[in-house]
Amino acid sequence: MRILLSKRAIRTLTPRFQRLWSTHSSFSTSGSGGFSDDPKPESWKTMEGLLRSPANFSPLSPITFLERSAKAYRDRTSVVFGSVEHTWLKTYHRCLRLASALTHLEISPGDVVAVLAPNVPAMHELHFAVPMADLILCPLNTRLDTSTLSVLLQHSEAKILFVDHHLLEVAHGALAKSDRTRKTPKLVLISQSNDDDDEDRSSSFDSNNSFDYHYEDLVKSGDSEFEVIKPRNEWDPISINYTSGTTSRPKGVVLSHRGAYLNSLATVFLHQMSVSPVYLWTVPMFHCNGWCLIWGVAAQGGTNICLRKVSPKLIFKSIATHKVTHMGGAPTVLNMIVSSPAGERKPLPHRVEIMTGGSPPMPKILAKMEELGFNVSHLYGLTETYGPGTHCVWKPEWDSLSLEERAKLKSRQGVQHLGLEGLEVKDPVTMETVPSDGVTMGEVMFRGNTVMSGYFKDLEATRKAFEGGWFHSGDLAVKHPDGYIEVKDRLKDVIISGGENISTVEVERVLCSHKAVFEAAVVARPDNHWGQTPCGFVKLKEGFDCVKPEEIIEFCRDHLPHYMAPKTIVFGDLPKTSTGKVQKYLLRKRADEMGSL
Amino acid sequence: MRILLSKRAIRTLTPRFQRLWSTHSSFSTSGSGGFSDDPKPESWKTMEGLLRSPANFSPLSPITFLERSAKAYRDRTSVVFGSVEHTWLKTYHRCLRLASALTHLEISPGDVVAVLAPNVPAMHELHFAVPMADLILCPLNTRLDTSTLSVLLQHSEAKILFVDHHLLEVAHGALAKSDRTRKTPKLVLISQSNDDDDEDRSSSFDSNNSFDYHYEDLVKSGDSEFEVIKPRNEWDPISINYTSGTTSRPKGVVLSHRGAYLNSLATVFLHQMSVSPVYLWTVPMFHCNGWCLIWGVAAQGGTNICLRKVSPKLIFKSIATHKVTHMGGAPTVLNMIVSSPAGERKPLPHRVEIMTGGSPPMPKILAKMEELGFNVSHLYGLTETYGPGTHCVWKPEWDSLSLEERAKLKSRQGVQHLGLEGLEVKDPVTMETVPSDGVTMGEVMFRGNTVMSGYFKDLEATRKAFEGGWFHSGDLAVKHPDGYIEVKDRLKDVIISGGENISTVEVERVLCSHKAVFEAAVVARPDNHWGQTPCGFVKLKEGFDCVKPEEIIEFCRDHLPHYMAPKTIVFGDLPKTSTGKVQKYLLRKRADEMGSL
Repeated sequence: MRILLSKRAIRTLTPRFQRLWSTHSSFSTSGSGGFSDDPKPESWKTMEGLLRSPANFSPLSPITFLERSAKAYRDRTSVVFGSVEHTWLKTYHRCLRLASALTHLEISPGDVVAVLAPNVPAMHELHFAVPMADLILCPLNTRLDTSTLSVLLQHSEAKILFVDHHLLEVAHGALAKSDRTRKTPKLVLISQSNDDDDEDRSSSFDSNNSFDYHYEDLVKSGDSEFEVIKPRNEWDPISINYTSGTTSRPKGVVLSHRGAYLNSLATVFLHQMSVSPVYLWTVPMFHCNGWCLIWGVAAQGGTNICLRKVSPKLIFKSIATHKVTHMGGAPTVLNMIVSSPAGERKPLPHRVEIMTGGSPPMPKILAKMEELGFNVSHLYGLTETYGPGTHCVWKPEWDSLSLEERAKLKSRQGVQHLGLEGLEVKDPVTMETVPSDGVTMGEVMFRGNTVMSGYFKDLEATRKAFEGGWFHSGDLAVKHPDGYIEVKDRLKDVIISGGENISTVEVERVLCSHKAVFEAAVVARPDNHWGQTPCGFVKLKEGFDCVKPEEIIEFCRDHLPHYMAPKTIVFGDLPKTSTGKVQKYLLRKRADEMGSL
Repeated sequence: MRILLSKRAIRTLTPRFQRLWSTHSSFSTSGSGGFSDDPKPESWKTMEGLLRSPANFSPLSPITFLERSAKAYRDRTSVVFGSVEHTWLKTYHRCLRLASALTHLEISPGDVVAVLAPNVPAMHELHFAVPMADLILCPLNTRLDTSTLSVLLQHSEAKILFVDHHLLEVAHGALAKSDRTRKTPKLVLISQSNDDDDEDRSSSFDSNNSFDYHYEDLVKSGDSEFEVIKPRNEWDPISINYTSGTTSRPKGVVLSHRGAYLNSLATVFLHQMSVSPVYLWTVPMFHCNGWCLIWGVAAQGGTNICLRKVSPKLIFKSIATHKVTHMGGAPTVLNMIVSSPAGERKPLPHRVEIMTGGSPPMPKILAKMEELGFNVSHLYGLTETYGPGTHCVWKPEWDSLSLEERAKLKSRQGVQHLGLEGLEVKDPVTMETVPSDGVTMGEVMFRGNTVMSGYFKDLEATRKAFEGGWFHSGDLAVKHPDGYIEVKDRLKDVIISGGENISTVEVERVLCSHKAVFEAAVVARPDNHWGQTPCGFVKLKEGFDCVKPEEIIEFCRDHLPHYMAPKTIVFGDLPKTSTGKVQKYLLRKRADEMGSL
């Protein structure tokens, strides 16, 4: 079923949405409307002369970044995707049209709109258009299987699903698995092509897979004079992001307009983006809304270089062609860059800032990246902190240190960014802060406006996560004497061997420093004597197939206390999430299946 | 009277303040305290699983910038004043001590603390320490006369007055004039010296002028473990700033923690400050809290170069010594720089970003500044918009234009910064937005979180200022086809001659382009035939004393429509406020006294 709505048709639909919203809203953007959710603060009642009015109050929302960029940077390039290029004014108008079209579909204010798409311009636009229509965006991981997708679509109660044409079949698979008694979401097809993309040119789009609307038709049919529906309250949800699911069943992290505004600005600050950066999209946009940089780049009127797929060749080509200034990526992206064949590389036009998160950059990769002309910064955060939450703020006096020392300092997760109120390493039971000795471990805890509103439909999990007035990250860390934190492990990854805690991260770091090792992950294996012992899963570099597990174990015993050295080494590929994180729960399962030593 | 409080004495004072605050507070920073001022948003009630907790909510306040910089930039230099140098950690501890000491004086939460001081480190510290003790700062203009000061001290109900030693006599003069039935504020003496300052070395401090406390004694006596009292609500006032009083009696503009946080970040963005800028204080700190940059520089862990007095020699010396990256100033500061004798100049170590506001930079000054190595940016705002509100965002394609064209573009006030929701030029009666034709005049109106909370004790004035849900600036402007606004005049300065509106700013621009003119201001003079005609007050450059008024008038008639050319020219110095704005109301009075033409 494919329905093409003409502009006229959409205009003549009953303006049910407008009506719904007007009864639903308590804040009027014109006139001196009331603020039922935000009464006049107590202090103002005792201080004569003050007045809360639309003149001096508006809910914080990243929507305003787009509105402003359409004025301040209107003729500058907002988005590049192959031969497609938009200006900020055009992006703004396209988003207005799309928002307008959305309000005419069978949907109500506050409903969830899901999207399953790679880093194409539509994915960028939906981050503005959906909230501009008072709807909540749910960006889905593009590598999820149909069963998980089906669960998420039902859990989120998405009314509309935007799908990239390459993923339409997956979407149909997911919908086929969903509960028949419930209404399935309407499908909107996105088919934006990138000439650079071979796969795209030979697109095997299956015309049998039906959809309800076409993305570009919606955009065309909408009204560019649409009046943006601002959140009535800045605490209104803007996005539901399902966690990557490395450890447990996915949870729907609800993010607010306020938090998104503040985290976007904080991320722009820590990324040191000045006016009009050129940002290369090597971080998946579905991942924490592209670390909040979909909104952040808009705040600075930058240019978004979209890529359907990430490859070293495309990265180097994009940097050279578009004079990319900033990019980001999990360590796998860095790994991909430094391991690329020389023939795929191009010289960088200038130093490129690259933010990495997920796990700390290894010294050898850091060295190679610097040699190639990148400046690597290290950030850390979780979906629950809107992506970036801390940053290893670099001190100028560290510049003169050896590579090894610099890598060691840079591998620390650092200090909180500007948007947070607090970052501490605490004993999760007593809630006492650990001493800043670089040794005592505790749980990383966050507090501030850039922490999620909660887990959707799981008040119990939210309560538990916020116990004691701090968000419990589930990560174990130490605090160094200079106040910088260093994550040692996931709380549930830590190995307890003979009563000693073993940080798997530290063992992995030693494994990765072996010349034959491409990447490694360590989990616990049951042990009759010690309870648990470390088990290392290792992917070898090409040409090192003759290396024996014993050699690796010996190397670890030379570089670690003996109890920390793995007793088992398994060679092979590591299972990963789409964001490049190793799926340790799968490795744990394999280690369990090996049985006790 | 001079009381030295020992640390012990202060500690043993009845903790009245602590008690007062605890009853006054409804928000607890630990535990999952209630939020009486911020109920759970409506939308959260319908969305299951969300929770507002100290984990995910904290009132926005620029205090957090200092707290974070004490961690992220702790060993970097925060303040330099002659031979005095502090790190961010030291500044933080000094502010904690001062805040702690304040809570032990005879003062209650929410009370006003005034300060009368130039750009010395104490002035910087008070911007943090006063709000950290839940008090409201009132930075007073250092050039006010005793009568005006007396009025402001009474109007603000200041309980404490911090005074620089050079201004102690003025402060006593003001207090002597105040209402005897009311309690006068306690005096705290600031006597921070700068070796660079000749006047300071030969300080004629009159020991007969009494005071209650000494600044450094308070700092010493306070507790560096003091727990910062965060605002219960981000709408709580942080500062009361009296307007410069160019046109009418001073008004107390109340600014909130939220607005200060947001305007600080927006100003850092528009000033393009990256991490650790070096900021030279040529803008008075009392002026809109140093355009919000006292807080903004803290957000980026920058270095504040303090100057007691501004002179070209000190400016060039400071830039060379401290590698200043950013500074600001009214056009008079720019004028001072370009007119300085070559012997007082030093080569700049790199391009220095200078923000100017108050009135647009003239082409000849712009050219000279660029030649000297400065990059001039133009911002615009009012005390009511926390200082900076708009910015003439520069477009790269303008770089290649002629100086004349660039100056013309740069003289425009531009577009709103990131903190604002709206900026429009509107008919103040119909509230209709003027067409973007560069010709139709209207009043500049602002809307957003960086607009004041209101005029202290003047609800009527607040209501009027916010009529129609927009803040009425009182400035007349046009909107250009590219969306940039250009201020043409103050609403009350505009001259109506024979029914035609004359922008005094335009006439002044032509006057200033005459080779003999140093600076000029134009006001209306009564005219029997035309109603009003322009009257120009002109300060001539040195060596041009022989120029006749007729020559100037002739020059204007050659460069303006005849009705816009002044009919009267008066030579002499222009009366100015301390921030460098011409006091037109004094000139208008003089023009009125000349009688009708």
